[in-house]
Amino acid sequence: MKIALLGHGTVGQGVDRIITNRVRGVEVARILELPERLTDPRMTSRFEDIVEDPEIELVVECMGGLEPARSFIVDALGAGKSVVTSNKAVVAAHFEEFAACAQSTGASLLIEATCGGGIPWIASIEKVRRIDEVTSFSGIMNGTTNFIIDAMVRQGTDFDEALKRAQEQGFAERDPSADIDGIDVKNKTLIAACVAFGCACTSEFPVTGLRTITKADIDLFAAHGRTVKLLGRGVLRDGRYAVAVEPVALSSDTLEAHVPSNFNLVSLVGTTVGELKFYGQGAGMLPTGNAIVQDVIDYCEGRRPHYDFSADLSYDASLLRADYVLRTRATIEGARPFGPAAVVVHDVTAEEARRLLERACEEDAASFMAALPKEA
Amino acid sequence: MKIALLGHGTVGQGVDRIITNRVRGVEVARILELPERLTDPRMTSRFEDIVEDPEIELVVECMGGLEPARSFIVDALGAGKSVVTSNKAVVAAHFEEFAACAQSTGASLLIEATCGGGIPWIASIEKVRRIDEVTSFSGIMNGTTNFIIDAMVRQGTDFDEALKRAQEQGFAERDPSADIDGIDVKNKTLIAACVAFGCACTSEFPVTGLRTITKADIDLFAAHGRTVKLLGRGVLRDGRYAVAVEPVALSSDTLEAHVPSNFNLVSLVGTTVGELKFYGQGAGMLPTGNAIVQDVIDYCEGRRPHYDFSADLSYDASLLRADYVLRTRATIEGARPFGPAAVVVHDVTAEEARRLLERACEEDAASFMAALPKEA
Repeated sequence: MKIALLGHGTVGQGVDRIITNRVRGVEVARILELPERLTDPRMTSRFEDIVEDPEIELVVECMGGLEPARSFIVDALGAGKSVVTSNKAVVAAHFEEFAACAQSTGASLLIEATCGGGIPWIASIEKVRRIDEVTSFSGIMNGTTNFIIDAMVRQGTDFDEALKRAQEQGFAERDPSADIDGIDVKNKTLIAACVAFGCACTSEFPVTGLRTITKADIDLFAAHGRTVKLLGRGVLRDGRYAVAVEPVALSSDTLEAHVPSNFNLVSLVGTTVGELKFYGQGAGMLPTGNAIVQDVIDYCEGRRPHYDFSADLSYDASLLRADYVLRTRATIEGARPFGPAAVVVHDVTAEEARRLLERACEEDAASFMAALPKEA
Repeated sequence: MKIALLGHGTVGQGVDRIITNRVRGVEVARILELPERLTDPRMTSRFEDIVEDPEIELVVECMGGLEPARSFIVDALGAGKSVVTSNKAVVAAHFEEFAACAQSTGASLLIEATCGGGIPWIASIEKVRRIDEVTSFSGIMNGTTNFIIDAMVRQGTDFDEALKRAQEQGFAERDPSADIDGIDVKNKTLIAACVAFGCACTSEFPVTGLRTITKADIDLFAAHGRTVKLLGRGVLRDGRYAVAVEPVALSSDTLEAHVPSNFNLVSLVGTTVGELKFYGQGAGMLPTGNAIVQDVIDYCEGRRPHYDFSADLSYDASLLRADYVLRTRATIEGARPFGPAAVVVHDVTAEEARRLLERACEEDAASFMAALPKEA
């Protein structure tokens, strides 16, 4: 089978290498690159050379960004070519449109590499859904923030130093906003929720990152037997669902609390299978390349994932409730003391907690908040 | 598609219920049961009624035990019917024979339910091997022993009390030997090794259970920041492999150390994907039933797993080395003190350690041993 790669950066080169060295029967026939980077006879800077080539059956998009990625994916699917992508931003923004395009021409859309790097997470959700309803999911889905927290916990560094190390080791971008403000996790949570719940989930849900966490916060939670992790979560009950991204102070007795370095750990609960958890490297050339190539091989072996958005679910913020700790100099009404400069508010929704934090930040921009789940 | 169940005990009833309620296009047409248990019009006590029925395409064996399970599986595969089984004992003993039978008639053998209950473990190993070499695997693969250790750690009970609770809650058989002596884990480790390494692995490898563990052992390791778990492990390097089943004293900082109740956690390392871990319920009617039904659906969707035993590997015990702690009243030459009544021997193979334990047990039958991995 002949395929084309859109982009030959870190991920594209990883995919090219794995397919060329290890996958029989698949040939990387064309590669889209910028005019100034045409260093290989397979390369072209004209997308038409790919979309109009009847021999190309599948297109692997690994450019990133919204445009032209969105147009290329729509055009390829529209031309009946299946698409494998690792681009979480564009899938989170246009998932329904892509699925509809694919359905109209009989092409397939394969998105394993958008969530959790080499972890077979999307395929596992799909597999569980063949038998079960997925009633909740939850996970550490961002390697950069996990690396930062792990360095703060194990090496006692402060946030800025840990971020610098993550950047030096290539786990964080020079502009780390998408990671530390929770945008990356938001995209992955939205994609996972759509697949898990079978509906076009809203992109309007509470998202809180980790930018303001300090060593003192780490120590405060450690004194309560807890470790903070940035989690994306979703829950489904009685035709209603809720999703959120926020720091959660987990019991040190959980598996999540012990996830090291830039690893991810994602969980789901299915009606008959119970709780399943999946752990692996969430990012990097080889794990992401691996996930893309697994999708390519799945396609070769006849897997045709079908994303279903037909479930009639309503968003209900009250499904995600917890106690929340706020470390802030602002005054929080109705809160009780939790530790030095920190208070706890009892039994509020993720949305209410997010509003509390926003108000606190108007007075003290360095305020930090974490959910304090009751089950821990 | 019409299928038959061999056996309608706990697992068979679970499979029947899940398929009837949740899987379209698959009908449980016949059920093999003992003559005195024919309570359903689909039931028969004659295996011929199933193996000679041209409408039955697939047979689900959930009887357990070696015979007649082995003969039924061989006959069904020989008649060109695909077989799904959860019977780890019979697959561990006859894996090569079954795979050869299946290959000769074009039938399929699907064994997800033999290892790790509802965890997609065998399918994940197969998936990883499409791209990578699996260089090692390791795991908590027995829910009963994990339940016992967890009760000893969290509730401070001794072994006998914890075993009694496991039996009361249905996690342990009245005769718990297969679980606490490591036989169950041995079978799963052997199956996983064959699938992961692509060879007919030897069944002659060191197996040590947990029968002699005491609360004092738990406390001794806790004082060293460690938790004991019963692990099955395998490693592959340069055309050589080794496997072992034994108690391992893991750092309390590992995910494994925090696996609660009767859950399992299995890991593998692949060349490009790195380390993946999978967590879920290892046993019980619904998780095992779920794994069987996933295999049935996979078969319906065209998955035809092919177990390859062609790798030319030699067994090399020296690949699995560690320090070992022995708690015994026997004298162990060359050992150094580790704690009250316990010594440590440095850098020996799992085989050498197993022989040391056997010799110690001649003098003190209550001796206990656990590996002390260096990386922890």
